[in-house]
Amino acid sequence: MFRPEIKVVDCTIRDGGLTNNSNFTLETVRAVYQAACESGVDYVELGYRNNRKMLEPAKFGPWRFCDESQLAEVTRGVDPRSTKLAVMMDSHKSSVDDIVPKDRSVVDMIRVATYVKDVDKAIRLAKVAHDQGYETTINVMSISKEGGLHLDEALQQIEEETRALAVYVVDSFGSLYSEEVHYFVERFTMFLKTKHVGVHMHNNQQLAFANTIEGIIKGANFLDGTLYGLGRGAGNCPTELLLGFLKNPKFNLVPLLDVISRHILPLQKQIDWGYHVPYMLSGIRNLHPNVAIEWMADATRKEDLVGFYKKLEIDFE
Amino acid sequence: MFRPEIKVVDCTIRDGGLTNNSNFTLETVRAVYQAACESGVDYVELGYRNNRKMLEPAKFGPWRFCDESQLAEVTRGVDPRSTKLAVMMDSHKSSVDDIVPKDRSVVDMIRVATYVKDVDKAIRLAKVAHDQGYETTINVMSISKEGGLHLDEALQQIEEETRALAVYVVDSFGSLYSEEVHYFVERFTMFLKTKHVGVHMHNNQQLAFANTIEGIIKGANFLDGTLYGLGRGAGNCPTELLLGFLKNPKFNLVPLLDVISRHILPLQKQIDWGYHVPYMLSGIRNLHPNVAIEWMADATRKEDLVGFYKKLEIDFE
Repeated sequence: MFRPEIKVVDCTIRDGGLTNNSNFTLETVRAVYQAACESGVDYVELGYRNNRKMLEPAKFGPWRFCDESQLAEVTRGVDPRSTKLAVMMDSHKSSVDDIVPKDRSVVDMIRVATYVKDVDKAIRLAKVAHDQGYETTINVMSISKEGGLHLDEALQQIEEETRALAVYVVDSFGSLYSEEVHYFVERFTMFLKTKHVGVHMHNNQQLAFANTIEGIIKGANFLDGTLYGLGRGAGNCPTELLLGFLKNPKFNLVPLLDVISRHILPLQKQIDWGYHVPYMLSGIRNLHPNVAIEWMADATRKEDLVGFYKKLEIDFE
Repeated sequence: MFRPEIKVVDCTIRDGGLTNNSNFTLETVRAVYQAACESGVDYVELGYRNNRKMLEPAKFGPWRFCDESQLAEVTRGVDPRSTKLAVMMDSHKSSVDDIVPKDRSVVDMIRVATYVKDVDKAIRLAKVAHDQGYETTINVMSISKEGGLHLDEALQQIEEETRALAVYVVDSFGSLYSEEVHYFVERFTMFLKTKHVGVHMHNNQQLAFANTIEGIIKGANFLDGTLYGLGRGAGNCPTELLLGFLKNPKFNLVPLLDVISRHILPLQKQIDWGYHVPYMLSGIRNLHPNVAIEWMADATRKEDLVGFYKKLEIDFE
């Protein structure tokens, strides 16, 4: 038995791009896109559409900007079947000027990532995107730092002012336990009477997949994953685990296993993602993972776990 | 707020020994023992006490047999504080003749691992161990293959015939989801009115820590972990994650982080444990992990994930 409302979003290229400044080869992005389409994943997110003036563009690969011409290179000749294409816009690094009308785009959905403090920027982006013909979501980042009045007001405002399909609980720090996932999904559901709730989980405490299941149990219908958990620091909920769990017969795991073998496992030679004790410690303390990523980047102290523990005690207490 | 009844059992050397035929150096075992004692972990399990006549002893290191003289080498000069020492006896590979009276042993607890079919052997071992002065547990392996009448009868028999402190739900195949953990812990609790329930989880689906928390939520009080999740295949619930979650102020994470840095991370050069897709696939299919471990042992096909998927389809359908 399955819940047909559930949508799986593979954001390997988008969120995984935070490990390599969005510098994937076109070949890898095409392979991930094709595998997603063959697997029956509902959405595949191929990068950010951030604004070049708001970043240092020379630092980043093409998937941080997702120009239409670039995306057309990816989709050319591939049958999307039922899979839709998404890009993400950060509310504080994006411009409505970069949203072209849907009939001139291969993009189906624009997902707006935001902190609670920037919710008005996010709502503006989501409204413009919707008016230009796109499906939209709003993804509330760093949720483990949020709560109380400001979150409630933001959710109420999103409910009233946008046509977003879904609003996401984003555990940016990999800090939530199951009871907190229940709390946030229930709270979102209370305010968002006309929208789905989504969950996007990080794996600092090896809970990304477990917390995604807990979201499902509480009614979340939009579920994010990345192939083999590729993502900054400890990484994400692995899409292959999610598809192995979901019962909808439209899903096919094999194309995902194939692209993991051919394109994701080889990335392990350059990118060190997955469970490491420093990421766990930043997750437990509800800290941005960058504090752990910076520690790990220095090979001479990467395995000095007590040193990192003590640094956190000094820096954050 | 914490539950004082909760006991943490670190079984790094015992269960981790399934990765290397229990061939840890004395130095590593002493370091793990000392760290466990300093961390406030309630029990540290240093190996199996299996019977030499029932195995090929030349194949195994000393921690498969845990002779008293060997254990004395480990504990000499270390202040155990409140930490007790455990060994495990497999019901089908152990002999009551290997249980010496408690006053001639450094062991505090004997844990008997058993399949449901061998429960009478397990009960006999547990009774003899109890009569010789030890604390005991009975650990019901491969629980994801069990259920129904035979399990109920086994639990009722353990309840009536033994003085075991705890009876464990052992997810040998890393196959359970949270709802199944709830089911088993509730079922065990129903039969075991005078005993604690324990949980021992494997990480095939990245759910070992999450499922341990779900066990806690349902009332399980004996919790197994291994340092950095060291264990066969995908490994175990990491003890450091467990201590990071539990609130009892008697626990101290730092000695565990230190021994992970010095003794466990270096083992990664010889032992490849942790999340890999073949382990996930055997977990989802509720299969013994050895089918995946054998596949992974051949470097030429280790990353052929589709090949392994297809093998399972042919072999098990």
